[in-house]
Amino acid sequence: MARGLGRICKGFQRLGSLSSIQTQLRQPSTSVSVRGTTLIRTMVQALPTLFSSKPRDFSLPNSSWGSEMMQLYEHYNSQCEVETEGGEKQEGPWRRLPSYNRLLKYATGGVHLSKIIQSKARLFTRNIRDPGAAFEYVLFVNSEEQKCVCVFQAGHLLEGPPGHVHGGAIATMIDTVTGTHATILSGPVMTANLNINYRSPIPLGSTVLLESSLDKKEGRKTFISCKVTSSDGSKLHTETTALFLSINFSHLLLGE
Amino acid sequence: MARGLGRICKGFQRLGSLSSIQTQLRQPSTSVSVRGTTLIRTMVQALPTLFSSKPRDFSLPNSSWGSEMMQLYEHYNSQCEVETEGGEKQEGPWRRLPSYNRLLKYATGGVHLSKIIQSKARLFTRNIRDPGAAFEYVLFVNSEEQKCVCVFQAGHLLEGPPGHVHGGAIATMIDTVTGTHATILSGPVMTANLNINYRSPIPLGSTVLLESSLDKKEGRKTFISCKVTSSDGSKLHTETTALFLSINFSHLLLGE
Repeated sequence: MARGLGRICKGFQRLGSLSSIQTQLRQPSTSVSVRGTTLIRTMVQALPTLFSSKPRDFSLPNSSWGSEMMQLYEHYNSQCEVETEGGEKQEGPWRRLPSYNRLLKYATGGVHLSKIIQSKARLFTRNIRDPGAAFEYVLFVNSEEQKCVCVFQAGHLLEGPPGHVHGGAIATMIDTVTGTHATILSGPVMTANLNINYRSPIPLGSTVLLESSLDKKEGRKTFISCKVTSSDGSKLHTETTALFLSINFSHLLLGE
Repeated sequence: MARGLGRICKGFQRLGSLSSIQTQLRQPSTSVSVRGTTLIRTMVQALPTLFSSKPRDFSLPNSSWGSEMMQLYEHYNSQCEVETEGGEKQEGPWRRLPSYNRLLKYATGGVHLSKIIQSKARLFTRNIRDPGAAFEYVLFVNSEEQKCVCVFQAGHLLEGPPGHVHGGAIATMIDTVTGTHATILSGPVMTANLNINYRSPIPLGSTVLLESSLDKKEGRKTFISCKVTSSDGSKLHTETTALFLSINFSHLLLGE
């Protein structure tokens, strides 16, 4: 069965490490004492933006998102915070998960890799910064229903069959969504199996919905199902079962 | 089961269309009538290089290939052409397959896509031109043994678990190798199932070997197995069974 740091850390890097990134990369303090012209004041006010080390959250809308992508995003995002009868705001049933392109430097692993590879490494699904060119996606989780959904717009650099998305790019999104979901349900996990049935191709440039649900938990095993459908749910593109194995959290910290 | 142009064309775009690309993209004729200075002559002589429409063959070695990648490449490449006792050269047991990054414009499909998407589309596994950054790989086929091997060097942009290759990137290479192999064995096919068992993670930057073999053929079905191991074969990374369905060649030509 799967061993070693890499896959063991999958859950951690996918979800667990996101909070640590947020913590470590807070925007620099703006409490700089400024006396002088408006220009200088404006420049200094701009500094936090210019030199901010805050990472880009790829799960937020950008100009490349089409109408289907935006509609589905707003559908789930509007349910992340709801208003009570008394007018107060409170957490809704869904929660949006942020997404970054750089994880290695926040992990304890990778010590055997060269410094060059470490410093340049990028998350596979976020390795192209050109908006709309590759994987545009956002994940939402519903803890009560033990479900996870992902709105995915497939860019022109993901081509496999002419005019359609590569089977490997679809597998990549399935691995990402089910892996994140398993981590939420069971803590740190590693992928042990992906069994993907391809039913119909996904046209390049289109938006699809990935829906992940818990089948069962047995000891260290978490069984997840995932369907990829057209954005309105009318067409089934793929059906998948996935198996994840829970791993000891100390492995993550020790990099074993 | 899978329908439509996209996956139907998979085999075609992977292998069948390569020859058509080579045919269509011959280097421009150099039979230009030139009278004038040496400078003009030099410029005109340089034109075929500057404006050549010959596509880059990504399966050939580049400066990013490490020693393991080069050794395995040379091991198989040296068996593509062998010398007889009489000193004559003849085809060997292995054959290297060329690999390009642009397929859509040579296909009949994709008519429903916008012109912008069509013109910018790139094969998923070849969408990053920076040598060594993502998928560096070369495929060899052995028709007599009904085997296919792929030497794959995983670049820093393929990160999943910290310091290791993303499960989706591994699935992408498996889909590519088994799909190509199925096409060689059975003609045009589409992927119907990929069942991947992940055994141990692949360190980022390392070179691995994918070995694909035919299990059986039953009517329209082609069953393929694929193992991913360390470059010396000592460590098993993944084990996969894949199912492909043969499709009617006229679908490819008609774009149905």
